Amino acid sequence: MENMNKVFLLSAAGTKYGKANLTARDLSMLASKRAIENAGINPQDIQAAFVANAFGMAEKQGHLGPLLMSSLGIPHVPSSTIEAACCSGGSAFRQAYINIASGFYDVMLVVGTEKISHLDTLTATTYFSYGGDYCFEGNSGASFPGLYATMARSHMNEYGTTEEELAAVAVKNHDNGVLNDKAHLQKKITIDEVLKSPIVADPLKLYDSCPFSDGAAAVIIASEDFMNKNNLQKRVSIKGSGRSGGEGSLHTRKNINSLESTVRASREALKQAGINIKKIDFAEVHDCFTIAEIIAMEDIGIFEKGEASKAALEGRTAINGEIPINPSGGLKSKGHPVGATGVGQIVEVYEQLTESSTQRQVKNANIGLTHNVGATGGSCAVHIFERE
Amino acid sequence: MENMNKVFLLSAAGTKYGKANLTARDLSMLASKRAIENAGINPQDIQAAFVANAFGMAEKQGHLGPLLMSSLGIPHVPSSTIEAACCSGGSAFRQAYINIASGFYDVMLVVGTEKISHLDTLTATTYFSYGGDYCFEGNSGASFPGLYATMARSHMNEYGTTEEELAAVAVKNHDNGVLNDKAHLQKKITIDEVLKSPIVADPLKLYDSCPFSDGAAAVIIASEDFMNKNNLQKRVSIKGSGRSGGEGSLHTRKNINSLESTVRASREALKQAGINIKKIDFAEVHDCFTIAEIIAMEDIGIFEKGEASKAALEGRTAINGEIPINPSGGLKSKGHPVGATGVGQIVEVYEQLTESSTQRQVKNANIGLTHNVGATGGSCAVHIFERE
Repeated sequence: MENMNKVFLLSAAGTKYGKANLTARDLSMLASKRAIENAGINPQDIQAAFVANAFGMAEKQGHLGPLLMSSLGIPHVPSSTIEAACCSGGSAFRQAYINIASGFYDVMLVVGTEKISHLDTLTATTYFSYGGDYCFEGNSGASFPGLYATMARSHMNEYGTTEEELAAVAVKNHDNGVLNDKAHLQKKITIDEVLKSPIVADPLKLYDSCPFSDGAAAVIIASEDFMNKNNLQKRVSIKGSGRSGGEGSLHTRKNINSLESTVRASREALKQAGINIKKIDFAEVHDCFTIAEIIAMEDIGIFEKGEASKAALEGRTAINGEIPINPSGGLKSKGHPVGATGVGQIVEVYEQLTESSTQRQVKNANIGLTHNVGATGGSCAVHIFERE
Repeated sequence: MENMNKVFLLSAAGTKYGKANLTARDLSMLASKRAIENAGINPQDIQAAFVANAFGMAEKQGHLGPLLMSSLGIPHVPSSTIEAACCSGGSAFRQAYINIASGFYDVMLVVGTEKISHLDTLTATTYFSYGGDYCFEGNSGASFPGLYATMARSHMNEYGTTEEELAAVAVKNHDNGVLNDKAHLQKKITIDEVLKSPIVADPLKLYDSCPFSDGAAAVIIASEDFMNKNNLQKRVSIKGSGRSGGEGSLHTRKNINSLESTVRASREALKQAGINIKKIDFAEVHDCFTIAEIIAMEDIGIFEKGEASKAALEGRTAINGEIPINPSGGLKSKGHPVGATGVGQIVEVYEQLTESSTQRQVKNANIGLTHNVGATGGSCAVHIFERE
């Protein structure tokens, strides 16, 4: 691991998140083509690919890679689907990073894609619960809203977190999403509206929860050799990569208001990057529910345990705050097309670090972090990127 | 890629293939526990894992890794599911190989698992077709039996291959499977029985086709450093790894009696191993249908194009023949639990190279090859192993 080569993020592109009239396959094609064009390379330069996708079966289509590669005119390129529930994107990116850092390949495409909006809400929630422990949780009615509600209660009991503090996370992320023309929910909301929105699983309400989104996101990563040989501009590099597992279900854990996988993955990424968390200028974290953003900030170390609850309410995590969290709008407002989510976080970081985030640009954004979680923390991937 | 570290196959274990009354999750647990025990290591030595699985959704369970890791008492271990249809196992192994060869990790678990027997045959065939191009093939009724039948017709037209020659592949693989107590179909058959079995998709009959199987297979791979530090016996090493994509569907190909992905993946593996195909002592190839074994042998280069058809009929590929093919019984008789298949091929190679194949032991087995295909060649993984 000491001999890892430096890896660059060459380009990044995503489709709009929301309700799409395209298949996951078509969405992945759109995002991939844009990423390839933006990279200034030819499809033929790509040596291998990963597709992040969780619910292809809901569209009767697995094995997405060869279909996408064939459409791109590069059917010989090896590709596999990587699935780790909502952490599919971060996990696929991690593997691509290892493939390039090790010198096995020089250029790879990572594309995350999902189409879920053709399912009704109950079926969609049920499909999502297949990413948890279906036998012991989903099958008993404990789908993700219920599980995250349980985690929220635990956090409230231990740290005094309030429903208003949770709501402030949603308000902040919607404020950011309004500035993102690719976001699913481009609509400002108020704390009062969140508190009065229908209860999904007490204490979590509809506006504490991310939407079911369709969408795709793609990135191209490359070795330093490839960048040099092709005279490509080095704009963003990958400084650290962390990936951890965690208990597959909640009922076996001692503590349910912290995700051990986040703690471990972020430590690993920071260690590799050789930096302290205070050096991070902004982060895209996995806010599938408002409580998840609070827990993530604490587990990553951005705030002390119990200190993150008030951050959004106090404006500290706003785009112009001391540490902007989810400038894209996050899963909450930008949307959560499962396979795409972790890759889409990296798209946001790329745009921020290349000063192309227009209205939602974070000032002096030099180092950004992505945090992608699968289920209730069964998987976590954390990556750190730096502007060159 | 020049600096890749040597990687060792430390242990391998599989469940019986067939109809199981266990979930894919339970099956993966069984195989993994056996592989860990056989390796002489502790579960805590495992640093990362891949699960190969294609149809978890048919059991309402994705994100299998964390459930398995939690059951093994190592929930912190990162794990992702890798899916490439029937090439899921080979693809997962390939990635684990890259992770170890690059020095990123020292010890990994790769487990393939599948449970499909709870579905009726029509539903199972339909699920399988999701691994092809469902929009353009499966949805029009072109599921895998029909697609492979079309490939068989093309091979017959071009090379004069006969139905009897196809049948001889089935007979040979059933002969081998009878010697394998883990095989799904432990039953000798005759050419006449194959020819008289019900037509599935002309010219392929029921006995030209592999069964729908449940089962799991697991391997542990490790770096030379780990082997040395723990004083573990080096018995089998990985000499070459190849992975290629191919057109996602048949209708866009110029030639449908050869799989370009097999040609490329086997060349890549042989090149890395630095050997000629003639050095291979036996091979486990992807015989989902009898025609697939013939095409595989030609594309890998074991026989010239058009020369493989007669090989089984002439006894050249029998366990005591000049080049034993599928001593395990292959997909045809050992069975085809999709996610497990590619890993199970490696289990067979491990057993052969460590002289533990009992009745079906190949004599002087020093170098073995595995060939795993996804769909009609959209993905292919080839690995070469050597006895130390």
